[in-house]
Amino acid sequence: MWRDLAPIGRSAESGGYRRYAWTGADADCRAWFKAQAEARGLAYELDRNGNQWAWLGDPAAGDAIVTGSHLDSVPDGGAFDGPLGVVSSFAALDELRRRGLTGLSRPIAVVNFGDEEGARFGLACVGSRLTAGQLTPAKARQLRDADGVTLPQAMERAGYDPDAIGPDPERLARIGAFVELHVEQGRALADTPHPVGVASAIWPHGRWRFDFRGEANHAGTTRIDDRRDPMLTYAHTVLAARQKAELTGALATFGKVNVDPGGVNAIASLVSGWLDSRAPDEGTLSTVVTAIERAAIEHGEGEGVAVQVTQESFTPVVEFAHGLRDRLAARLGGVPVLPTGAGHDAGILSARIPTAMLYVRNPTGVSHSPAEFAGEDDCVAGVTALADVLEDLACQ
Amino acid sequence: MWRDLAPIGRSAESGGYRRYAWTGADADCRAWFKAQAEARGLAYELDRNGNQWAWLGDPAAGDAIVTGSHLDSVPDGGAFDGPLGVVSSFAALDELRRRGLTGLSRPIAVVNFGDEEGARFGLACVGSRLTAGQLTPAKARQLRDADGVTLPQAMERAGYDPDAIGPDPERLARIGAFVELHVEQGRALADTPHPVGVASAIWPHGRWRFDFRGEANHAGTTRIDDRRDPMLTYAHTVLAARQKAELTGALATFGKVNVDPGGVNAIASLVSGWLDSRAPDEGTLSTVVTAIERAAIEHGEGEGVAVQVTQESFTPVVEFAHGLRDRLAARLGGVPVLPTGAGHDAGILSARIPTAMLYVRNPTGVSHSPAEFAGEDDCVAGVTALADVLEDLACQ
Repeated sequence: MWRDLAPIGRSAESGGYRRYAWTGADADCRAWFKAQAEARGLAYELDRNGNQWAWLGDPAAGDAIVTGSHLDSVPDGGAFDGPLGVVSSFAALDELRRRGLTGLSRPIAVVNFGDEEGARFGLACVGSRLTAGQLTPAKARQLRDADGVTLPQAMERAGYDPDAIGPDPERLARIGAFVELHVEQGRALADTPHPVGVASAIWPHGRWRFDFRGEANHAGTTRIDDRRDPMLTYAHTVLAARQKAELTGALATFGKVNVDPGGVNAIASLVSGWLDSRAPDEGTLSTVVTAIERAAIEHGEGEGVAVQVTQESFTPVVEFAHGLRDRLAARLGGVPVLPTGAGHDAGILSARIPTAMLYVRNPTGVSHSPAEFAGEDDCVAGVTALADVLEDLACQ
Repeated sequence: MWRDLAPIGRSAESGGYRRYAWTGADADCRAWFKAQAEARGLAYELDRNGNQWAWLGDPAAGDAIVTGSHLDSVPDGGAFDGPLGVVSSFAALDELRRRGLTGLSRPIAVVNFGDEEGARFGLACVGSRLTAGQLTPAKARQLRDADGVTLPQAMERAGYDPDAIGPDPERLARIGAFVELHVEQGRALADTPHPVGVASAIWPHGRWRFDFRGEANHAGTTRIDDRRDPMLTYAHTVLAARQKAELTGALATFGKVNVDPGGVNAIASLVSGWLDSRAPDEGTLSTVVTAIERAAIEHGEGEGVAVQVTQESFTPVVEFAHGLRDRLAARLGGVPVLPTGAGHDAGILSARIPTAMLYVRNPTGVSHSPAEFAGEDDCVAGVTALADVLEDLACQ
């Protein structure tokens, strides 16, 4: 199962994955999902927002237990972020069958949420946000990728109907609980004897685009005093972001930057940098982003550069359902319960339905990189834990 | 003439020009040049390196006076950098004919040098460098654009023979002098009563690629202390470049940066920034670049980021031929004689043949931007000055 999925969307150069929403690699991942569902005799469904479902039992029975994750990736991402959750979900169903699963009191589904990483259109968790009504179809239709292709155009080219997207309350009403298994993206489990942990909360996080506007000019003839170079203000802002994050215990990262016109011998007219910031609580997050914005504006004033900040996304703090969380932790025999700074579809859905997460140990803590890793024994422990949880919830 | 050229390769969005070597816009500019030559009954020639020539008189007579410039642009460049020199050259020939040109003792040619800006392949003045033997065919064939297309592939797609490129000493041997008219790219003439000036020298300049290698990781889960973020080292280096330039009277600019993987929620693994630096003399240039490199390495050590610096091009100081320079200044009645930080085909050719430049006043000094400008009266003064110079040199 893992072997079939491994080569899809992998870059020969970096060894990393480039599985962006509605691309050919994404289509290949979706075909893999459908084949896995059919091979197990599970009822396959594609919902209005491009999320894929594979059902064991009758969806109409309601109070379903859903597990799964996503198959798309960040640019040059690792093999585990997303796919481990989907592969483990199918493997956990196989394990339940091996255990001679009897007395299924609730239907179980495996889900693949579309466009979780937001690598192409800049907004994360598009599939689950649309379903949960946290993203309006009108706003989704305005999303554009770096080449100017809109989300509806991309969906159409991939053979999907962009007119159908929108909230799906009937579908959510049938779900009693959602459990997402995910590779850990930090080192909290690495130094413990536990291969698996349970999530307590997701830090609030957001993305802000900083536009620095100066004046394009010739790099070889424009005197230093006559320059309005937005690259300088960007550089000051990158350093201010690190400093403010250190001061407040938050995280702040510039990982993407565009330069216009971007010629070696031209002073830039516009530099756009994207800030990703997260903090343990919303007050701290607001404080750190405001401080970074203030530093950017102050440096810009000294350099003749105008600064404009646009919030591109914001996800409030997520506290996973305490009852479900405690039940999982108890069933798994007192495993660690941890917060994370990473966003997940589970975080989106937790506003609407009881949601929980399992983390599988990551020895280096590295994620969103080809170096992302989880050991085979730990992955097997993750499948066993997920099967235990599903059995506990669905076979009462 | 100007009106036909104006719309080619112009971006509707920015109003700037995107005329990159061997693209469709470049082909349109070349067709325009050929048409201008033919309309005037000039003998049209395309040389082995893709430079275009239009001859008045017999090239084989030798000791020719050549004038011209280039038609390609930087990304979102202005209308004047390059084209003003080519248009003025044709207009100056028209002016000579209006004056009833008699006694042409030397042939005159108008030239359009290919790929002067280096916007596509990262190396400036490819056409004149190849002709002058300052760039070997083997090295030129290794040039690649941002999409991985090599120079030979680009030439072939544009219908040119990449196997033919190489030094052209026979052609250079026929040229007695080269005079390039160019819009001024600074403000030295702006505050004087002179619409036209003569060049004294071109500052030495070069391009250096700085590769900052850290470790890709998840922006939402990697603790500040565990990060090796190359964006920070890049930011420190941008600020160091400005500071070192100010201290030494040099120029230093980062106008292009690439980030790998470039995801909003991923700490970068690799940031590549291109430094353009120039100084009044080679000693100062070497001092400033070394100081920037040292600052980059020192910051990188503190941040767990490896820094590698590659010199992509270097052009030594150019002192234009004193005799020719003084003759032009005298003929034009004591106009200002100025140095510049900008590279030109004239700078390349000056190593092989007597070369001079005329600058046309630019009221804002802005260049390599849609705001680049020269007033109509000043452009006419430029044509008149060029015609005076050609008459003086070719009608002895």
